[in-house]
Amino acid sequence: MVAKSVSTPRKVSICECWARDGLQGEDGFIPTERKVEVINRLAAVGFRRIEATSFAHPRLVRQFSDALEVLERIDRPEGVTYIAVVPNSKGLDRLLESCDRGYGVHEITAILAASEAYLQASLERSLGEIMPPLADLIKRARRAGLSVIGCIGTAFGCPLTGDVPLQKLIDLTDWYLDQGASSIMLGDTTGEANPAGVAEVFGLMRQRYPRVDFIAHFHDTRGMGLANTLAALQQGVVLHDCSLGGLGGQPATRRPKYHDGYAGNTATEDLVVMMSEMGLETGLDPAEVIKTALLGEDVCGRPLLGHVTRSGPVQHRGRKALNPADLSAGQEIPPSLFFVDGDRTDRRSLPEAIVRQALENNWSRTDALSLDLSRLRVGERIPDRGPLITRLTVVESDPSRDRMALEIRSLRSDGNACLTGRILITFG
Amino acid sequence: MVAKSVSTPRKVSICECWARDGLQGEDGFIPTERKVEVINRLAAVGFRRIEATSFAHPRLVRQFSDALEVLERIDRPEGVTYIAVVPNSKGLDRLLESCDRGYGVHEITAILAASEAYLQASLERSLGEIMPPLADLIKRARRAGLSVIGCIGTAFGCPLTGDVPLQKLIDLTDWYLDQGASSIMLGDTTGEANPAGVAEVFGLMRQRYPRVDFIAHFHDTRGMGLANTLAALQQGVVLHDCSLGGLGGQPATRRPKYHDGYAGNTATEDLVVMMSEMGLETGLDPAEVIKTALLGEDVCGRPLLGHVTRSGPVQHRGRKALNPADLSAGQEIPPSLFFVDGDRTDRRSLPEAIVRQALENNWSRTDALSLDLSRLRVGERIPDRGPLITRLTVVESDPSRDRMALEIRSLRSDGNACLTGRILITFG
Repeated sequence: MVAKSVSTPRKVSICECWARDGLQGEDGFIPTERKVEVINRLAAVGFRRIEATSFAHPRLVRQFSDALEVLERIDRPEGVTYIAVVPNSKGLDRLLESCDRGYGVHEITAILAASEAYLQASLERSLGEIMPPLADLIKRARRAGLSVIGCIGTAFGCPLTGDVPLQKLIDLTDWYLDQGASSIMLGDTTGEANPAGVAEVFGLMRQRYPRVDFIAHFHDTRGMGLANTLAALQQGVVLHDCSLGGLGGQPATRRPKYHDGYAGNTATEDLVVMMSEMGLETGLDPAEVIKTALLGEDVCGRPLLGHVTRSGPVQHRGRKALNPADLSAGQEIPPSLFFVDGDRTDRRSLPEAIVRQALENNWSRTDALSLDLSRLRVGERIPDRGPLITRLTVVESDPSRDRMALEIRSLRSDGNACLTGRILITFG
Repeated sequence: MVAKSVSTPRKVSICECWARDGLQGEDGFIPTERKVEVINRLAAVGFRRIEATSFAHPRLVRQFSDALEVLERIDRPEGVTYIAVVPNSKGLDRLLESCDRGYGVHEITAILAASEAYLQASLERSLGEIMPPLADLIKRARRAGLSVIGCIGTAFGCPLTGDVPLQKLIDLTDWYLDQGASSIMLGDTTGEANPAGVAEVFGLMRQRYPRVDFIAHFHDTRGMGLANTLAALQQGVVLHDCSLGGLGGQPATRRPKYHDGYAGNTATEDLVVMMSEMGLETGLDPAEVIKTALLGEDVCGRPLLGHVTRSGPVQHRGRKALNPADLSAGQEIPPSLFFVDGDRTDRRSLPEAIVRQALENNWSRTDALSLDLSRLRVGERIPDRGPLITRLTVVESDPSRDRMALEIRSLRSDGNACLTGRILITFG
């Protein structure tokens, strides 16, 4: 087979899995209204593929005992595809009833695994017991108008048996396509994948099945979630899975643990920032995704594993004009530096120069703004020479008025503040 | 300029930066003997480039007040290159004295930054004040026989001013090479880089300077450390920096913070596992690197940010024969699955079948081993059908004898143990 030249797609489609793959490992039951709150926020900030719940047996995974209620209560904005995992025919019965009442999903995920041992550990049945009813399930779902994602778990290695032969992925893909699956998910269930393996596997699979939509689904168990996502992107994969805060892992049941460490999905907020920074079209605003991740942390009651929730998105600075509509009270503006150079700087005009530079560092065309600095105070002495780090915080930003107020704190290198107070800005 | 086709190098050289870039952000002083312990362990497990300390002013960064003592006390195994950061001529005086007494380093790192504001914030001086003495410092170091790494900080973006023009990297590289620098480090000081930018920057720089050794130095502030490392590898970069546990960040001084979040280096243990899994020659055994990372956590007194310290390395299973010399008492063997299939399994031979499969899952050629199972106990009933997850722990492994003992625990899917006790193995 001749290798096709592939390249990173310009536009990607991200499936947010927090409400299913994320929550399945949570011991505590998350109240239905909070699940609904997060799912609605995900749709509102622009996710167009959302894994909403699972029809696992409610006694086995209590977290999903409210699957029907979640589907009944979430908003249904146009253009959003909702997805549910359906592991067996009883689950499909429940889902189809919900569909009939107008509260279904658009796609279901059927689950198999490249490692038979892993599949037996998760489903407590042999392959011979699992596959025939799964084939029926897929056909019934297709007849009911649902698309089916054929998930192949442990596609890059198994925590119970180790390496997985590529032929197994081909056999299962063939089987899924024969049953009518509309896309194939290669799942790195417990984070065994590495970028070289991902490139090889997705490269070969996309050559073999050029018209099939493949979904890259990585877990960040060994910190390689984003590197593997990059490798999949470079093989032209458009569909990518992730979960707010890197939430996820083995379902919370009484079953013995089959892996060590924290096996959550790649963190949505980090993945979105990476893709946005790479210039890919995600349809998402990283700042809004970060806020949603913080909501996810609030719902889970603890800090999760995303990085950009702590650091903020990358600050490119100065590209946009200062606009009160972009800012809200309490918002912190990233820091700026002013270097006091004794010989060159007129000390009387220093406070204004410091303020002007902080504005200029963050927004374009700031020279036309009128500043009222009468409420600025000089605390510790401004040094004759040396750096000042200045932070601005939005005090008031009313887009309907032509003024806004910012709090300023300008710190010397000994950590003491030399300039504090309030700046009033009037727009011309 | 015509793009050269580049490819991932077969062999990489990893510089471990824990003792300098890692420790610089620690508030508490790490005792000298513990720094020496980690540095010696790094050399013992196979790192061939180790950043050992900094000659920053001891009053400014107290962590490095023992720089000379560290250099005097560390082992000096052949083939290991030790590196120190030298920010000014007084630091170089101290280092050269140490060199004269036989305790120096092989390379020093000189520091500049693509963002002038960042440089001013870190060094409290203007560029005009910094560059002439730095040029002298580099020349003196070269005359003293030291190699010089020209570090360009904030090479992929600045937390104080935002984007950085590529021309700035070219200007600083030219300047460093004119002064006699032997390699150029592009430092992503606070994690602004993304894989597309990394590919562009390293691609262009390596085209422009084909004979220059470039060092990729990423911080994991936004979780992209490994993805950026991958992008640099794909541009042919051989020299990579990292720090145990992802330790690092802004130096612990009184200076105001110029970034949010946790801005440590890419975690060494995760980077080594990724590169090993990709089949690159690192000269390192991931399991030993993970143990060293756990030592780093012990020294810092808290869990750090590596992933593989929690998950363990990827388990490929069954590739090596069982050898007592590879195992030590207390070592846990990754779990295995046995599926009890009522129709097919003779219940009397089940315990042995479970043990045999657990061995076979982990090592090759286990059928020839003699097993003494007389100390095996059946606890809860073995189910007629369903999965068992079995874990082995090494009890005794004396390579000089031809026997070894393993503890076994085989758990049913309700979490209860059905097989426990001890297995004695005799080698034929």
